[in-house]
Amino acid sequence: MTVPSAAVDFPAITPPDQQAHRQAVARHLELVKPAGSLGRLEELGVWLAACQSTCPPRPFTRPRVVVFAGDHGIAARGVSAYPSEVTAQMVATMLTGGAAVDVLATVAGASVRVVDLAVDAETPDPVGSHKVRRSSGSIDVEDALTGDEVNAALEAGRAIADEEVDGGADLLIAGDMGIGNSTPAAVLIAALTGAEPVAVVGRGSGIDDATWMRKTVAIRDALRRARPLTADPVALLRTVAGADLAAMAGFLAQAAARRTPVLLDGLAVGAAAMVAEDLAPGARDWWLAGHRSAEPAHELVLTHLQLIPLLDLELRLGEGTGALAALPLLQMAAHLLTGMATFTDAGVSPACG
Amino acid sequence: MTVPSAAVDFPAITPPDQQAHRQAVARHLELVKPAGSLGRLEELGVWLAACQSTCPPRPFTRPRVVVFAGDHGIAARGVSAYPSEVTAQMVATMLTGGAAVDVLATVAGASVRVVDLAVDAETPDPVGSHKVRRSSGSIDVEDALTGDEVNAALEAGRAIADEEVDGGADLLIAGDMGIGNSTPAAVLIAALTGAEPVAVVGRGSGIDDATWMRKTVAIRDALRRARPLTADPVALLRTVAGADLAAMAGFLAQAAARRTPVLLDGLAVGAAAMVAEDLAPGARDWWLAGHRSAEPAHELVLTHLQLIPLLDLELRLGEGTGALAALPLLQMAAHLLTGMATFTDAGVSPACG
Repeated sequence: MTVPSAAVDFPAITPPDQQAHRQAVARHLELVKPAGSLGRLEELGVWLAACQSTCPPRPFTRPRVVVFAGDHGIAARGVSAYPSEVTAQMVATMLTGGAAVDVLATVAGASVRVVDLAVDAETPDPVGSHKVRRSSGSIDVEDALTGDEVNAALEAGRAIADEEVDGGADLLIAGDMGIGNSTPAAVLIAALTGAEPVAVVGRGSGIDDATWMRKTVAIRDALRRARPLTADPVALLRTVAGADLAAMAGFLAQAAARRTPVLLDGLAVGAAAMVAEDLAPGARDWWLAGHRSAEPAHELVLTHLQLIPLLDLELRLGEGTGALAALPLLQMAAHLLTGMATFTDAGVSPACG
Repeated sequence: MTVPSAAVDFPAITPPDQQAHRQAVARHLELVKPAGSLGRLEELGVWLAACQSTCPPRPFTRPRVVVFAGDHGIAARGVSAYPSEVTAQMVATMLTGGAAVDVLATVAGASVRVVDLAVDAETPDPVGSHKVRRSSGSIDVEDALTGDEVNAALEAGRAIADEEVDGGADLLIAGDMGIGNSTPAAVLIAALTGAEPVAVVGRGSGIDDATWMRKTVAIRDALRRARPLTADPVALLRTVAGADLAAMAGFLAQAAARRTPVLLDGLAVGAAAMVAEDLAPGARDWWLAGHRSAEPAHELVLTHLQLIPLLDLELRLGEGTGALAALPLLQMAAHLLTGMATFTDAGVSPACG
């Protein structure tokens, strides 16, 4: 029996509004189309109405991506196809608009913020305003973070969510950027689902067989350290996550506390989301799965959180790209409830019988 | 052995440009992301480059939906949940912007044109400028169209594609609107795949069990008339389709002849697409499947045309809505090839080894 860490407290999560939910279900029956014929687009609109406590829901005016960047000590074990300096280089690329997340955000009408929680380099202001440390401990043999650091990371995530919601964000997406981060993500997922290392190890950024074997060993060793801590989400983050993933968990929990809908991305965000649900039970009611990643462990996340992804396009990039690819579907779902005529308005005959 | 009808001739279809295809594959390897990590979004971009004969591909500036409206004599057998007058009512609704297709087109940045090929009512100019007739023969006991009518419908579809391409459309979507049209669509699909009536009958607009039984009988009787004609696409359209579906087939074939990419919708469009591929072999290289419909027969279309749908959201509305839901993914795919930085530009280290 573990004694829970002195945790950052998240307020109790209240569910989306059931009255607005019922109103949206009823409204869909009045719109000029066969009942239920828009399938999941109808469900999405109903969920949005419930999240916003209003029917019809408002189309998003400020969907916002926050990319959580951080390096990982485990990368020194040779678990990635890329060297660690790529994390800082990609942060710089994101700031100039040349990364995939930037391009997809522009098409989807979202804006992007990059935050450096643990990049192993200096990053320009204000990217590092919430920085907790550089990199993390090598989780196969040591803790990722100290107790103070994990609390600072959770607080950072919570503060970032507050900043965004107070700044007007009406939909939040968390993205990840960090060479080596699929290793701690896989460890978190295995720890919380009871899966074996070989069931959660994936090709990440495109690793070869030798790297795959090193990654599997790293996951196995870190998992041995994580298993006793599965009932204590903060201890789990401290031991095998990292400041970026811990902040992401705080961000996802706080988004739910602030009654703001979230579109989840893939593996790294999914791992953080599993921990966030343990930190703030019920938070998942505020989340939607944007896509099913090509990473095998992501399926375990979706099953655990009981989320059905909108897209299945074999993406495995991270950065929030899978969530952004799904964002237009959410916008469409909102606009359908707002913009479609009713049978009465349009003078269209109802179904027979 | 049937003697082929005096068919409308479509020119030989040439495939998308293989050089632009190779250039796009190579360009994706240079962009700042792990190779292949954008999954199907990469494949879509490569396909667009090949269709446009240019790399990077141009994001669409004039994606265009054409809704083919028509009534069906078979509706009098009680095969639909809605009365036939809804076809004209929905055409009117589409013209005022209140239909689902209008709402989704606005979000996706597309425009909508409605054409009346066989609505059993007067429609306002210029909607009826290509009108072939009112409704169609009841295909369980008589031909849908005369020989002249089927040729006029094919010519209309071809002319509409020409008008749109000449008007600057750089992506085409066909949509359907017609009470009862899922019955002829199912018959075409069963005829061309050898499937039994019970394998192609679906709930359409949401029919009850008694209607389902009438629909199955209608499909069975029409299929008996269609089976001998499967090698003659024009005769098949004349016997069991209708002017709307025949025009759609001509439109889809001509889009390919004009080297213009097409995003396919669901059941009705899929049935027309199968015939179009027989009219103009190779046309399918110019088509992409927007989604997998909730209608069971649509899976047979996808398998027959060897198309993998982008979305699977249980839509069964038609109008082009399933294709429109997928359109942002195509835009994103184009923008990724245009807007992402390369490893060299961004100064990002390449993969190890």
